[in-house]
Formats: sequence, structure tokens, C-alpha cells
Amino acid sequence: MRNKKVLPLSKVYRLIEPGPVVLLTTAKGGRPNIMVMSWHTMMEFEPPTIGCIVSNRNFSFELLKATKECVINIPTVELAEKVVACGNCSGRRIKKLQAAGLTPVPASKVKAPMVGECYANLECKVVDTSMVSKYNFFVLEVLNAWVIPSKAKPRTIHHEGMGEFVVAGKRIKLPSRKK
Amino acid sequence: MRNKKVLPLSKVYRLIEPGPVVLLTTAKGGRPNIMVMSWHTMMEFEPPTIGCIVSNRNFSFELLKATKECVINIPTVELAEKVVACGNCSGRRIKKLQAAGLTPVPASKVKAPMVGECYANLECKVVDTSMVSKYNFFVLEVLNAWVIPSKAKPRTIHHEGMGEFVVAGKRIKLPSRKK
Repeated sequence: MRNKKVLPLSKVYRLIEPGPVVLLTTAKGGRPNIMVMSWHTMMEFEPPTIGCIVSNRNFSFELLKATKECVINIPTVELAEKVVACGNCSGRRIKKLQAAGLTPVPASKVKAPMVGECYANLECKVVDTSMVSKYNFFVLEVLNAWVIPSKAKPRTIHHEGMGEFVVAGKRIKLPSRKK
Repeated sequence: MRNKKVLPLSKVYRLIEPGPVVLLTTAKGGRPNIMVMSWHTMMEFEPPTIGCIVSNRNFSFELLKATKECVINIPTVELAEKVVACGNCSGRRIKKLQAAGLTPVPASKVKAPMVGECYANLECKVVDTSMVSKYNFFVLEVLNAWVIPSKAKPRTIHHEGMGEFVVAGKRIKLPSRKK
């Protein structure tokens, strides 16, 4: 391991985090909110189950815990500036969707809005809160999923920390026996 | 939403999954094993905490549950064929690292080996198994992290399902107030 160095533990997240950045929308009493989220993982294929961290310092935490509903919206690189705008302020004080120039669209199965500009939207309900108090970890089931058919190769963005993003590049296909 | 279509629920994972593909190594009684993993998320910055799904159909599940130790190894696109080779067979029957042409390197804090060819290696211990029986979800704490310093812009691969991977493309930086 002579070509390697020990990485400070505080920087480890920059290695692991680069899943697609998503926008989590919630709503309570007709008031929508939005936050940027990179800490999420699939947990089961079907019904599609997603685990995600929503910090209890975020306004979205309160809305998600109270309503048990949300939408996961997946943006592409064209929306990067708007995504960062959502990450730089709190929904406690301002109307974030409006401030970021994003369009709320009614969802079919949840009260949280879908973000019209995103290439995909997943309507979700919270199905397990047993790890919320310890880790802020919510288990979601996807109830309905929307996607733009023409976006076959979406250029998603993947957060690497500190405002740095890697953009999805070329696609490769290898013979695999797995899903 | 007229430009969108409903996506079959069984395909939702292809939207969410594209975090960096990693190789999870374990070892028991001097016998190492390796598996490909895409279902993982950061859960806390420091100590770096990672949640991941290891299916109980995988041989690695038994080793991880028994030893409570592993290494998360992060490959770049140059290793894509070897990664897929690891995904196409089981460690129950063959020596997978050897078969895939990967080099086990002793780790410093765990008995599981590090994969020498990977640009980063995270030595981990299991710290929470409360969601293992229900979801195959393990909570790991990173004890030590290794990275190749020169790999400033690693071309990680991100699984989109069915052997299709997106390669990390160009980097962008936007003004952010967040980690």
C-alpha cells in the first residue's frame, strides 16, 4: 500500500456519497418543502424500498415524520444550480421551490409535490421509523414512479462534498448474470 | 406530467442505485471472500458510518454476520471486467479474488483483506445488526481509510442494473454552504 495514504476519517463520505443527488419534497397543511439528499440506498427491489437519511436539523425531517409521505425527485446536470440553491437555505423561513425556480406538480398518491423539471419522480411513503431516533434513517416504499422516456441516458449529478459534483459520463455494458 | 410515463416498480432501483460500485471483502478462518455491492449509503460523517445491504443469499452475508468485519474497496473503470467477474459467481465454491485476478492485501485493523487494485479501501466493523433480520441491512463504522493520493478524479463506476454502468464523467463545482 505504498502508493496510498491514510485519508482523514472526516473525508470518507466523499468517497461513498456519490449516488445521484436527489431532491426530497414533502408537504404539510398545503405547505411544500424541498431538500437536497445524497444519503440514500436501495434496500429491496420490489416493492422498491429505499433507505435514506434526513437530518433532524432539516425542516423536512419534521414534515416527513409527521406526514410519512414524500417524493424523491431526480435532477440532471441542467438543474445543478437550482439544486445547490435548495441546499443553501431552509424551508423554515422561505418558500424554497419558488425561490429556486422549481415547479411543484401534484403527485397521484401522496400530498407532497413532484418537481416538474426533474427527469424522474418517485412517490413514497414511510414504512419503517425504527431507526429514525438513532440515525435519522427512514425506510421508504415507492408507491409510484414517473420518468421521462426520452431521457435514456440522464446526466445525473453525484455529490462529492463541498459543492463538488461528478456528472454521469459514458455508459458501458458488460455481461452480467445479475440484476 | 404529459412528457412522462409510469415506470414499472420493478425498475425503480435502476434510478436510485447509481452510487459507486464497491467490492466488499470479508474473511473467516483465513478464507477471504469478495462481493460486488451497490446498495449502500452514508449515515453519519464522523465517525464515518455506512449502511449497506448484503443479501442473505450471498456467502458474504454469513462471513460478515459471523466476523463483524469487512473492507469496502472502491474500484475505477479500469477494473470493470474484474468487478463483473466477482458478481457472476459465488465464493462458496471458488476462490473469487484469485479467480478475478485481484490482489488481497492485509488490512491494518480488520482480518478481511483489502483489494490492492482499488483506488480506495475502507476498513470497517459492524456496529448495528438490528435491521439485519428484516432487511439484510448492516450498519458499519469505518475504522481506517486508504486512498491513492494521485487519484484526484477517480473514474468510478455506477451500476444501473443488468450489467450497465455509468462512468463518472466531468467534475463541476458550485458555491455551496454545505458539506
